[in-house]
Amino acid sequence: MKDHAATLARAREACATRAYWSPFPEMPKLYPDVGRAAPAGKAAFQAMSGTQFALDLPGVTGCTGEEISPYTRAPLGISYPQADPDALFAAARAALPGWAAADIDTRLMLLMEGLDRLYRDHLFTLVHAVMHTAGQSYNMAYAGSGVNALDRGIEALVYAEQAMRAVTPSATWARRFGPDEIALHKTYRLVPRGVAVCFTCASFATWNAWPSMLASLATGNAVIVKPHPASVLPMAITVRVFRALLAERGFDPNLVTLCVDTLADPLGKVLIKHPDCAIVDFTGSARFGHWVEANAHPALAFTETSGCNTVVLAGAQDLDAAIRSLATTMCMFSAQMCTSPQNVYLPPEIDTPDGPVPRDTVARMLADAIARLVDDPRRAGMILATIQAPQTLALIDWVRDQAAQRGRVLLDSRAYPHPEFPNARTATPLLVQVGKTAQDLYAEERFGPIGFVIDCDSAEDALYQATTDARRNGGITGFVYARDEGFIAAAEDAYARAGAQLTINLTGAMPLNFAAAYSDYHVTGLNGAGNATLTTPGFVVPRFAVAQSRRPVEGTP
Amino acid sequence: MKDHAATLARAREACATRAYWSPFPEMPKLYPDVGRAAPAGKAAFQAMSGTQFALDLPGVTGCTGEEISPYTRAPLGISYPQADPDALFAAARAALPGWAAADIDTRLMLLMEGLDRLYRDHLFTLVHAVMHTAGQSYNMAYAGSGVNALDRGIEALVYAEQAMRAVTPSATWARRFGPDEIALHKTYRLVPRGVAVCFTCASFATWNAWPSMLASLATGNAVIVKPHPASVLPMAITVRVFRALLAERGFDPNLVTLCVDTLADPLGKVLIKHPDCAIVDFTGSARFGHWVEANAHPALAFTETSGCNTVVLAGAQDLDAAIRSLATTMCMFSAQMCTSPQNVYLPPEIDTPDGPVPRDTVARMLADAIARLVDDPRRAGMILATIQAPQTLALIDWVRDQAAQRGRVLLDSRAYPHPEFPNARTATPLLVQVGKTAQDLYAEERFGPIGFVIDCDSAEDALYQATTDARRNGGITGFVYARDEGFIAAAEDAYARAGAQLTINLTGAMPLNFAAAYSDYHVTGLNGAGNATLTTPGFVVPRFAVAQSRRPVEGTP
Repeated sequence: MKDHAATLARAREACATRAYWSPFPEMPKLYPDVGRAAPAGKAAFQAMSGTQFALDLPGVTGCTGEEISPYTRAPLGISYPQADPDALFAAARAALPGWAAADIDTRLMLLMEGLDRLYRDHLFTLVHAVMHTAGQSYNMAYAGSGVNALDRGIEALVYAEQAMRAVTPSATWARRFGPDEIALHKTYRLVPRGVAVCFTCASFATWNAWPSMLASLATGNAVIVKPHPASVLPMAITVRVFRALLAERGFDPNLVTLCVDTLADPLGKVLIKHPDCAIVDFTGSARFGHWVEANAHPALAFTETSGCNTVVLAGAQDLDAAIRSLATTMCMFSAQMCTSPQNVYLPPEIDTPDGPVPRDTVARMLADAIARLVDDPRRAGMILATIQAPQTLALIDWVRDQAAQRGRVLLDSRAYPHPEFPNARTATPLLVQVGKTAQDLYAEERFGPIGFVIDCDSAEDALYQATTDARRNGGITGFVYARDEGFIAAAEDAYARAGAQLTINLTGAMPLNFAAAYSDYHVTGLNGAGNATLTTPGFVVPRFAVAQSRRPVEGTP
Repeated sequence: MKDHAATLARAREACATRAYWSPFPEMPKLYPDVGRAAPAGKAAFQAMSGTQFALDLPGVTGCTGEEISPYTRAPLGISYPQADPDALFAAARAALPGWAAADIDTRLMLLMEGLDRLYRDHLFTLVHAVMHTAGQSYNMAYAGSGVNALDRGIEALVYAEQAMRAVTPSATWARRFGPDEIALHKTYRLVPRGVAVCFTCASFATWNAWPSMLASLATGNAVIVKPHPASVLPMAITVRVFRALLAERGFDPNLVTLCVDTLADPLGKVLIKHPDCAIVDFTGSARFGHWVEANAHPALAFTETSGCNTVVLAGAQDLDAAIRSLATTMCMFSAQMCTSPQNVYLPPEIDTPDGPVPRDTVARMLADAIARLVDDPRRAGMILATIQAPQTLALIDWVRDQAAQRGRVLLDSRAYPHPEFPNARTATPLLVQVGKTAQDLYAEERFGPIGFVIDCDSAEDALYQATTDARRNGGITGFVYARDEGFIAAAEDAYARAGAQLTINLTGAMPLNFAAAYSDYHVTGLNGAGNATLTTPGFVVPRFAVAQSRRPVEGTP
């Protein structure tokens, strides 16, 4: 049995200093006993194919499953129990009192154990589950959807613990009122809000889902997980692990349930508008996310939607290195991350130590760098991976047509042959160049491998356009390359006001949009990209209330 | 110059232990140099009568003022500058950058100084301003609307400081990515949400307004104060003090402005729906409060509306003492507090050491105790004070008629002659007895001196009815008298679930509904009485975001 308390204490220190730390190995090859664990996980995933997923839920009315692997384009054939939402809420409510009454340590240590079991016993099964639903590469499924997501879960527990421990459980209070000295014994109890619904997205489920679930559970709530119908398996595994653990420790497993729906018959609004819905965590489209924010009331809403992410390339000490980093990050998982850069704002000339470089040269360099990265199918497979949703291919076609009419295509998109999965749904990046008036085209998230080079009047204009688009249309990340420190300071101000997290002059092997748990804040809430930050106290504190009770100390009035 | 840092540190300790503390004397007679300060404050108030209130605001389009003293029923005749909302928002936005850039200590110490100036230089002017707008007694205006409200302001600063200091300003983060050791310098800046609008209520403006204003200002936001048109003066004085102080310290005074409207031409929805409105603090009616909660988005909403407050009298060790406490608290400021008990749920027999006492006897005792309290006009003046709004008198008439048809009137309401103000709007409490089916009558806040005795089937039924009404209709406070510890434990559970703060078996000179800053949590957010708690981190944390910027440490990629 691992010392979860020590791990949590170390995580608390990391959240305070925000220096690097993780209890997990960052790469599969460093995983303990990987030679056994990796194939065992893959076999466990493969054994699920074409079966009924074993999950005991309340109120099961049937079963369904419509996942299709982006790697094989064949159905996974896994059928999940489908439960009646009323029954899920009723079971969750019935489960609440025992969980709410458990002390803080009991809840925290159980949840740490749940994360640890996902890591120890299910990580490589999850890797393949993520690959064949979200379409991520093996390495990204291990890191981004695996250990980094577990880190974000632990981080949520750190903030939950701090928020709960900040409330003293009891106090003695005494004051004179006229003739009487009044002495009161006061007790303060943490009251969970109730039943939370956690919506997870198709392309990156666990990274947002685990911190959301754990923030709710740690503070005493129950959680109904509502996965995107295209990406159920990673969440079904998660729910099964937590249910078994809860039951084993004497708690009602209905604290964590799964509500599976279908694209044809969505249940999202039914869950949100259910009278027992107290908390909504939502990751997904901006359109539905804004509906959630405006309509979840009286439930609390925590959202992360989409990023219109911007790059200002005003100058660079090493232009080639900057272009390489940018190209790599724009290719990473075919830009199907909410943090992927999409829009590159260029002044007429880019400032370098060798003199100014014309915009069109730089645009060409970027297109060429992308082309080189995806030329080799093996490397393309590792970086681009696959396209999660078929409609992304249609979107690429539409943007190409628009750009051809209104600007130019710098690099066309094509399918590339995946070295292991010949049927994989793939697309190399489309890079187009447009004027800054084509905002209807570029000033929103175009989900998938689609990049825009945008002609601006000057470096200052590029910064203005980029941060205005980020503020108006919801930027999560921003990237600036510049040699002038005054310009960099102005960019820091402008991006902070726009509410996008900024990375400056970064080159090298780290993906530019890598967000580290315990260190990087994800989403500010200052623009339309969502209202919840991973992780601030604001992500956790509203999930419980403080109820107090006071009575005279024995022997006083 | 006082040591505000030491005071704030002491307040922080009080919030942690929740033991009694206040830097202020609780009674006027203990105020330093009260013999000079009290008459000077009164004279300053009287000098304002019939004048133009001197307040320099941006965008002034005219002036208005429709306050009427509940003590004299004569207009105060004070005319306030009326500003255009667009101009107020524009001025506030222009003022933001300098304030947001100030360091935490600068903001906190300035705001502590503002509270201290209200205390040192304006407290007795505020006392008379509150008396002649809200209609409170002199003592309540001093304590509840004066020093206790200042305490709640300091408490908000404690939570603001903790929330802001929890974010480290910078970090160095390093990790290996493939071939590269990436070392990043990260900076984290606190970004205020923007412009807050603080709505204040007619009967108890400062107690909610000061903590709301200070929570917003401490975290770097600007505040537009929108007072109820019947109670402008206390807030106008507050705004003037903070504007002068800001200007004196080199900040833009437009960080704090006043938006006066009229009953005929309300501006509330205009302010909330303004595109620059980022935060709404609302105290007032449940009806408008629920509209705010549902419609403020994308602005944050912090609400406190009204309390359907319940008493379960199942038994008492000293029945007379319990009845006296209950009667006094039901009379306090004519029950025009959101914490005033309204509904007394009685089983058929009340358990006492001398045996069971029949319900009707207890109901009679309560009516008699109230009658005795208000019989002497001098004492009535001190306890009941006046009726803030004329429509309360109509409500009393309506409830009396309803109760006469559906139950009985235990104690009728009448005007009492105020010893100092012969024209005062006064009403002694109406106490009626009804069956538990008359929920349409009693199961919501009936603002004013109106009490209900509700016949229940048993003590358990009384608890069930009371907590169900509190949960469904928004209870802020709950009161239980019982001798059985098992029943008390059940009541603690039930009230915690209902979301009302509970007081048990309290007798003596403390008003049962007294809520102490630094110790008592006010409003849970678990029922319809509002979503904001004075004070939890949740009241402060969402008012700012964290924006980060990261770049390679010198000499690394």
